[in-house]
This record gives sequence, structure tokens and C-alpha cells, in this order.
Amino acid sequence: MEAVACETTTLYLVLLHYPVLNKHGEVIGSAITNLDIHDIARMARTYGVAKYFVVSPYSDQHRLAGELTAHWTTGSGARFNPARKEALQRVQLAWTLEEVVEKVACEQGKKPLIVATSAKKHENRIDYAELRRHISRGEVVLLLFGTAHGLADEVMQRADVTLPPVSGGTAYNHLAVRSAASIVVDRLLGI
Amino acid sequence: MEAVACETTTLYLVLLHYPVLNKHGEVIGSAITNLDIHDIARMARTYGVAKYFVVSPYSDQHRLAGELTAHWTTGSGARFNPARKEALQRVQLAWTLEEVVEKVACEQGKKPLIVATSAKKHENRIDYAELRRHISRGEVVLLLFGTAHGLADEVMQRADVTLPPVSGGTAYNHLAVRSAASIVVDRLLGI
Repeated sequence: MEAVACETTTLYLVLLHYPVLNKHGEVIGSAITNLDIHDIARMARTYGVAKYFVVSPYSDQHRLAGELTAHWTTGSGARFNPARKEALQRVQLAWTLEEVVEKVACEQGKKPLIVATSAKKHENRIDYAELRRHISRGEVVLLLFGTAHGLADEVMQRADVTLPPVSGGTAYNHLAVRSAASIVVDRLLGI
Repeated sequence: MEAVACETTTLYLVLLHYPVLNKHGEVIGSAITNLDIHDIARMARTYGVAKYFVVSPYSDQHRLAGELTAHWTTGSGARFNPARKEALQRVQLAWTLEEVVEKVACEQGKKPLIVATSAKKHENRIDYAELRRHISRGEVVLLLFGTAHGLADEVMQRADVTLPPVSGGTAYNHLAVRSAASIVVDRLLGI
């Protein structure tokens, strides 16, 4: 696998809080957590992810997430921990997936490849090595992760392709989204 | 890289809360967090890690961590979420690294290879592919992670070998220990 060595790549991460599934397979909206913001932002910065979009349709959630990120990017947290500031500066709040797609298309001057992730197998797959080559050639990729019990069907259908589930060689597949995102991005950009 | 496909491997994880470093490089003891227990336990179960030891020398921390894990392994959490129970059953509290080394040696009938991880480069390294082969041959490996700003020198010196830092191709290396552990274990056992 070839090395990608730049402070910023053409990979974008999206963490969706709606539409996602609950444990009964029903479509719900989930709450934004402080931890998903911090852990994934730090990982994103480490791998040179261009931006990390946190998507929620709820204005109270935007208010909360806005306060949390502002503390570390412009508030006293920024002085206390400059490394954390650098990570959280790559976080952007958005209302919908379509808003993210449009923003990235404007920023990059071309439509991104939309790639879904899932703990289950899906049709229309792309493997890790192929997607890695894609990014290393400078193709723009939007990588989607779902909170709660994963992305709803409508998001899976909106995606161009899907990555295979992360397998650890056992029948158990209940990774935290923070762990899954770290592993998937390492497979795509790790050296 | 060869596949490892068993529900339990010979890899053991150890999360140390003492002796670790603070941001000034001083040796401290850190607090156990609920999140490090859950995220790393779920990841450990996914990859067939034999056991996940949470090490702290403080009895109040043991009491707290014991209550947290008991809720999910024998309390109402076990009925609510059997998958979480399965993950947290692999968590064991310990007082010192030496206690863990002894327990694993007794369980496996041989001394484990003690492998440290660090965000900095160290002497006496083993690379990921070599350690992966080691585990796939059934060698017993104890993989150490430090909380706070990483493992203290005395732990680095106690280790037989050290893995290179996880690199994302940028100069930034401030991963959460939860992310770092997920990435390292995927490199050693992922399929």
C-alpha cells in the first residue's frame, strides 16, 4: 500500500446522527456526544482528514456542539491545549448529508465519491486497498459513519459504494463508532 | 498478512493508569474512565483479545471500575445489552503490571512477550508485521497502553520490545488511547 504523506488529504469524514437506526431497526435521530467529537477529531487530524462533519437536524444539538467546539477552538481550552484546538478546528457542524455533499463539491470543484460504512455486508462494495489508491490519487472521498445502530437504508442507498465491515476474525461486531472510524481511516491512510 | 480466525487469540491488552506521564513528563497516576473500559473492551472482543487488563494501584478506582463492569456483566445491564456483557466479561482489574505478567504466565504456562506502545520512537523495536506473525503462531503477547501522556520510562524499560508509533502521515500525534488501541490491534489481528 502506498504512503500518503500530507497534512491534508482529500478524505472527508461525516458522522451522521440522523437518519440512523435504533436496536429495533427503526429510523431515529441520535444525540451528539462530546466524545465522538473529540476522539474522531483527534484521529482525523492525525491522518490529515480534510474535514470532519458532524451532522444533526436538531438546533439544540447544534447549539450544544457549537459551545463544545468553541471552548476548544476560541475559548480558554484553546490556550490550555493547542493540540486539541488544532484537532477541533477541522470539525464542522451540518444539518444534512446533502449540505455536506454540496459544501465539499464547492470546496474541491468536483463531486465527492460517497462511501458508506456498515457493520453488515452490502452490495456495491469497494475494498480498502482500492479506496486507498483512490484517495492517494487525490480523488475526493466522503466517508460516512452512523451513530446508534448504524446508517439508515436511505443513506446506504444514497452512497455510491460501501466498505466491507471491519472484521477482527470473530463473530462479534459491536465496535464503538470511534473505534470503527479509527480503524477504517488507518486502513485508508495509515503508514 | 495472514488471517487469524479464532474467538480467542493469545494477545492480551493492558491499560496502565500508573506509572504514566503528565504533560510535563512527570510520573503520575491517572483516573480510570468508563469510556476506556467500554470502548477498548468492545474492540478487544471484536478481535478475539484474550483479556483486557485495567491496571490501577488505587483501591477507590478499583471499587468504581468494579461497580461499572458488574453492572454490565451481572447487573441489569447484562440483560439489557448481552453484547456489552460479552465484551466486558473480558475486562479484569489488576493492581500492577507485575501482577498481570504473573497471571498471564500462569494462564498460558509461559512468559508473555511484553510489548510497549508509545507516541514517540524508542529503541528495541518490533514492527507490526513481525508481531502479527508472532501472535498468529500462538506466541503469548502482552500489549501495553498508557493513559494520560503515555507510559513512564520504567514501564518502557520493563518491556521486551516497543511498537513504532502509529503514523497517519502527518506531524500530529495526539490520538486518544481508545483510537490508538483500536488501530494497533487492527494492524495485528484485523482481516
